[in-house]
Amino acid sequence: MHYKNNYHPENEPVYKGLSVNQGVNDAPMINPYGQPKRKRQQYSASEFVEGILGGDISMLSQSVTLVESSLPEHQLIAQKVIEKCLPHAGNAVRLGITGVPGAGKSTFIEALGMHLVRDGHKLAVLAIDPSSERSKGSILGDKTRMEELSVAKNAFIRPSPSAGSLGGVARKTRESIILCEAAGFDTIFVETVGVGQSETSVHSMVDFFLLIQLAGTGDELQGIKRGIMEMADGIAINKCDGTNIDKARVAKTQYQNALHLFPPHESHWSPEAITCSSVELNGIREVWNMVERYIDFVKANHYFEIKRNAQSKYWMYETINEQLKNNFYQNSEIQNMLIDSEKRVLSNELSSFVAAKNLLDKYFRKIRK
Amino acid sequence: MHYKNNYHPENEPVYKGLSVNQGVNDAPMINPYGQPKRKRQQYSASEFVEGILGGDISMLSQSVTLVESSLPEHQLIAQKVIEKCLPHAGNAVRLGITGVPGAGKSTFIEALGMHLVRDGHKLAVLAIDPSSERSKGSILGDKTRMEELSVAKNAFIRPSPSAGSLGGVARKTRESIILCEAAGFDTIFVETVGVGQSETSVHSMVDFFLLIQLAGTGDELQGIKRGIMEMADGIAINKCDGTNIDKARVAKTQYQNALHLFPPHESHWSPEAITCSSVELNGIREVWNMVERYIDFVKANHYFEIKRNAQSKYWMYETINEQLKNNFYQNSEIQNMLIDSEKRVLSNELSSFVAAKNLLDKYFRKIRK
Repeated sequence: MHYKNNYHPENEPVYKGLSVNQGVNDAPMINPYGQPKRKRQQYSASEFVEGILGGDISMLSQSVTLVESSLPEHQLIAQKVIEKCLPHAGNAVRLGITGVPGAGKSTFIEALGMHLVRDGHKLAVLAIDPSSERSKGSILGDKTRMEELSVAKNAFIRPSPSAGSLGGVARKTRESIILCEAAGFDTIFVETVGVGQSETSVHSMVDFFLLIQLAGTGDELQGIKRGIMEMADGIAINKCDGTNIDKARVAKTQYQNALHLFPPHESHWSPEAITCSSVELNGIREVWNMVERYIDFVKANHYFEIKRNAQSKYWMYETINEQLKNNFYQNSEIQNMLIDSEKRVLSNELSSFVAAKNLLDKYFRKIRK
Repeated sequence: MHYKNNYHPENEPVYKGLSVNQGVNDAPMINPYGQPKRKRQQYSASEFVEGILGGDISMLSQSVTLVESSLPEHQLIAQKVIEKCLPHAGNAVRLGITGVPGAGKSTFIEALGMHLVRDGHKLAVLAIDPSSERSKGSILGDKTRMEELSVAKNAFIRPSPSAGSLGGVARKTRESIILCEAAGFDTIFVETVGVGQSETSVHSMVDFFLLIQLAGTGDELQGIKRGIMEMADGIAINKCDGTNIDKARVAKTQYQNALHLFPPHESHWSPEAITCSSVELNGIREVWNMVERYIDFVKANHYFEIKRNAQSKYWMYETINEQLKNNFYQNSEIQNMLIDSEKRVLSNELSSFVAAKNLLDKYFRKIRK
């Protein structure tokens, strides 16, 4: 079945079902029509919104699937749903969680997450991992690493959108936050793996950025060397248990000292380092207390609002810049010409700048037609 | 005098003179016509090329001024000059030099530069400092800090283009490299101040990336915390003189150890840390020997060519992306609409994504007309 044949051009397009792991692609111009494996009930945007606002997890989950889809008709519904959810969003605490693989992010999320849902919170756990296509969901993909949380009534766990550019993946995650908040989740975790530029993306959509560190690895530069510590509002030194306790305490002092070397945060908040054990459940409550103290602090000095506004602006500009590039690079004539231009640049026939200029001239001539 | 009145639309536009510190602006659409303070001799692109290839420093200097100008007619000549110089470029060793303010970059460049020109080299020193507009040329601006080098016969020192986005400033510097090489300079330094993203830009246009570090500041994280060490092909620990010698040697060991913590470079080169004193002229020759050993090493394993090709490609794409954005944001209707869109995004009336979509729709409708 091709969607083309069933496409409804009216104001209220309908969603005809798409399995979670399919059709997620950042190149709508190249492959605009997917072939869903099975048919589901067809819902309109208003029905999705009604479901989401009523806290229907299945409807929320299907809406997130639409957000992640690259099919133009799915995007059309998704954008309508987001618009209508927007006035009901924004009330959650958004916590970014990062750390290198092996730092124990999954067990930490399980521990902190269970602490929160037991305390009456509704928690959504999202992720950004642009590498997940290759690593096949190393992050959140394996829900069995969060045994309790994955079946908890008030928790919604969603793996990272599985393909596309970082900008595209991050945009989808940010849109999903809006849907989760409209569905009544008061706490959002956004997890990312501690490599590459994904931290910057997560940082641009959360209120508090938590770095999970590991004591006693003998590599005291972990995290620091990628400038991530500069972004952190707090550090949780994980696996502070058993024979690791002394090392974790030494690490805490080291990190606390290191944090003072960085220029003060715009928020005027002084980042803290806290030891914890996700296994023995020590220090988990203290980490959450830190987050709550931070939120109180930045709400009092209005930085909370300033940051949220800056993030909204950032995402408007990011979306524009991403789309300007997509439009150019997905133009079939440009794609053909690029191959030749690259060759001529590499053989020193053409400067990078003249090659770029020729391509741009071609592009603007083309779209003016 | 307005250029508009004197504009020559024929194939061979002429350069009518522009003082070095004027008219350098990244927004050609907004302010396309500058008012030069004085008139100079008018040269054609071919005359510039002839002058440059003959090693005429005045002609080189005026060409660089054209490259840095934002006037469309200057850019037209500049691009012609660059095209014709391109086959004569590419033969220099390109050395990127970074370090935090106070690390002694100027005295180091003076010392290494004088060592090279005395050895028969022809040296051009360029800079990238997108902040120079504000700091009024903290970098290379004050040539008096390079007393000998600034008057040496075989040295050409040029401050950073003084305004515009990092991308724009960096593009101009990269184009200037081509002109300097065509003029017979066999060694190019590109200096940058050790803050922000300018290192990445410099890294994308040089063969060897040298980090100048200072021993004994008590801040062993300098450099590391911004991820710059990961980019460095070598570290020069400067001010290894007087009472500083022991501290510099300790620092050398620390940096050498730290360098091993990073993943291996694509080049398979192992970065080295070398102590030096720009004042006592110790270790300067050793730093240059390291650069030469590196060049031999990467020429032998072909990484030299691979990197230069990757850089050419990078700059083609960078130029395209920069220009796509310029075209959008310099559109007057978009500029008006952006103000309103920002307001509505900040008041939560509109999602970042819908605001972006509306702006893009408007833009593409507009340029299609």
